[in-house]
Amino acid sequence: MKVNGKHYRTIWADEQDPRIIKIIDQRLLPHQFIIEELRTVADFAAAIKDMHVRGAGLIGATAGFAMYCALLHDPGDDPGYMERAAASLLATRPTAKNLAWAIARQKGEISGEASPEAKLKRALAVARQIADEDAEYCRRLGQHGLEIIKEISTRKKGPVNILTHCNAGWLAFVDYGSATAPIYAAHEVGIDVHVWVDETRPWLQGSRLTAWELGQEGVPHTLIPDNTGGHLMQHGMVDMVIVGTDRTTRCGDVANKIGTYLKALAAHDNGVPFYVALPSSTFDWEIRDGVAEIPIEERSDDEIKFVHGQTATGTLESVRIAPLETNGANYGFDVTPARLITGLITERGICPADEKGIVELYPEHG
Amino acid sequence: MKVNGKHYRTIWADEQDPRIIKIIDQRLLPHQFIIEELRTVADFAAAIKDMHVRGAGLIGATAGFAMYCALLHDPGDDPGYMERAAASLLATRPTAKNLAWAIARQKGEISGEASPEAKLKRALAVARQIADEDAEYCRRLGQHGLEIIKEISTRKKGPVNILTHCNAGWLAFVDYGSATAPIYAAHEVGIDVHVWVDETRPWLQGSRLTAWELGQEGVPHTLIPDNTGGHLMQHGMVDMVIVGTDRTTRCGDVANKIGTYLKALAAHDNGVPFYVALPSSTFDWEIRDGVAEIPIEERSDDEIKFVHGQTATGTLESVRIAPLETNGANYGFDVTPARLITGLITERGICPADEKGIVELYPEHG
Repeated sequence: MKVNGKHYRTIWADEQDPRIIKIIDQRLLPHQFIIEELRTVADFAAAIKDMHVRGAGLIGATAGFAMYCALLHDPGDDPGYMERAAASLLATRPTAKNLAWAIARQKGEISGEASPEAKLKRALAVARQIADEDAEYCRRLGQHGLEIIKEISTRKKGPVNILTHCNAGWLAFVDYGSATAPIYAAHEVGIDVHVWVDETRPWLQGSRLTAWELGQEGVPHTLIPDNTGGHLMQHGMVDMVIVGTDRTTRCGDVANKIGTYLKALAAHDNGVPFYVALPSSTFDWEIRDGVAEIPIEERSDDEIKFVHGQTATGTLESVRIAPLETNGANYGFDVTPARLITGLITERGICPADEKGIVELYPEHG
Repeated sequence: MKVNGKHYRTIWADEQDPRIIKIIDQRLLPHQFIIEELRTVADFAAAIKDMHVRGAGLIGATAGFAMYCALLHDPGDDPGYMERAAASLLATRPTAKNLAWAIARQKGEISGEASPEAKLKRALAVARQIADEDAEYCRRLGQHGLEIIKEISTRKKGPVNILTHCNAGWLAFVDYGSATAPIYAAHEVGIDVHVWVDETRPWLQGSRLTAWELGQEGVPHTLIPDNTGGHLMQHGMVDMVIVGTDRTTRCGDVANKIGTYLKALAAHDNGVPFYVALPSSTFDWEIRDGVAEIPIEERSDDEIKFVHGQTATGTLESVRIAPLETNGANYGFDVTPARLITGLITERGICPADEKGIVELYPEHG
């Protein structure tokens, strides 16, 4: 999507030297647009763990390039090297399914090649393919989701009001985004859409990233505290909710940014359709019960006690907003049970959030 | 309650010169403990509107002293003066019931006196009485709420985990608090309690005020983003929720800090008892349907886009956390329907959140 009018993806190999992988350092948005170069596996692990990059699809695409980077630095005489590199990447974000998925995919593809040169060539091609697929799947699911927004727009006057939580925008994927793809598609065909952007504490993915990318694309939006959505739904001010997911069970439970479950409850209580948009790479086909089985990442409470932003003089600064002695608990995700989800918007179409509906779209996992 | 070991109330008349009313400037907590003097009606109106003081009971007590202050400056030859002073105070916070309640009470009491001297004496006495009653009612409701915590503590090992939203602590009243009064009472009798403190965006009443006052009293607590409570309840980590209220209908609907409704939904979905603690001054006996009838305050979106805190060098600073061009919507309260509330904890005892239960405790409003 566009940054100051120019098209970007969130990750790409340098054109001159594809051993250098480039990303947008998302910690600095919306204040600074900085492109960072990743050159070692440690660079990649830090970029994922410390959230220079984040979001389901982008974590997967970054892991794909990270495995190529690992292979680049394979000394050749250390049989455990690639396994350790993969493990160091896997340990960065425990909830994200795309991470394990991309690493497993690269391992499988690399093992099919014999020579070091062929392995390297294959790994770069697969990394690019993972990124291309992510973008293409998001584009396609956007077209499917567009039909829902179109249908709502024919039934009402004024804008279609869509609430989203966290950033499941193009910044969370390679391009288009998941939750945002139907919104961008609707905006492109001239449907009047307006987005309620949950600020998404503690990391503020909504106020820092979603508000910024919607602004860059000219999509009307209003920033709200995470506390606000229930009130808006009680008063008929939300026509639908679309969120992303970091891991989806084969029965349709969804792990997404902490707080998603609360919005699903409010949508259910007020009869507001609640959709989850996902490329199929976020399915965890092995598990059924999300609340019981999905591991939930815990992060430092510094993300709660300190807020990072721009001062009046333009410098970036952290301020403490709680007593020094107070401790916090920082769970990264919660699980929304399938019973609260109206439908899953995938690259193959829309299905109910249950095993039957999902397997009908993905019969190869039946 | 205690600040650095010394007992304070949140508002009091100066001992030497009772025309000077003293408050704690809550905008600066937890970083600075500053006592502010209020001397004019404009001082009072600004202190309420700009939230030097806030919270149901404290807004009422402040309004009581503000009416005394208005009378002090009554020129005597302007028949509309007192009405205009009252109106300027009433306009500061539209949702808070205690504001209108305290102003009406003062008007009635003052009108019963003939001479300017008698009116003044009466107004000061009534202001003090409103404050004393607020503290005493909170103390009493704390004793009633204590019984609920006691009962839970007999059924389980480990601490009783209580989640609260916003600050319905002593800082929101004159002393003890509403939601916190049962917690302080339980802590005092040696019950092992632990409080999950919602940080309460955008104004951060939880991280700035509730965490601070619990810390001052030595009550174990953990700070969490507002997004977290649902996840905790899904995993059995919350034994009960206690919140306050700024206006309560005669049928038991409750307007409290924005986001309360979301926690009530999560409590209901997980079978967690959800209690609302209130002195009866927050009842609005005239209305039944909270969602339809309670006016919801809207505040500046600067409270969303900017966060105020302490830098590493100890200065207080505001940082911007959203794109400059983004607009926000800042609703101060939402309404939790009575159907989601387990019970109301009042100074007269605990009742179901319905008209029958409420009127049984308050037959004079039957």
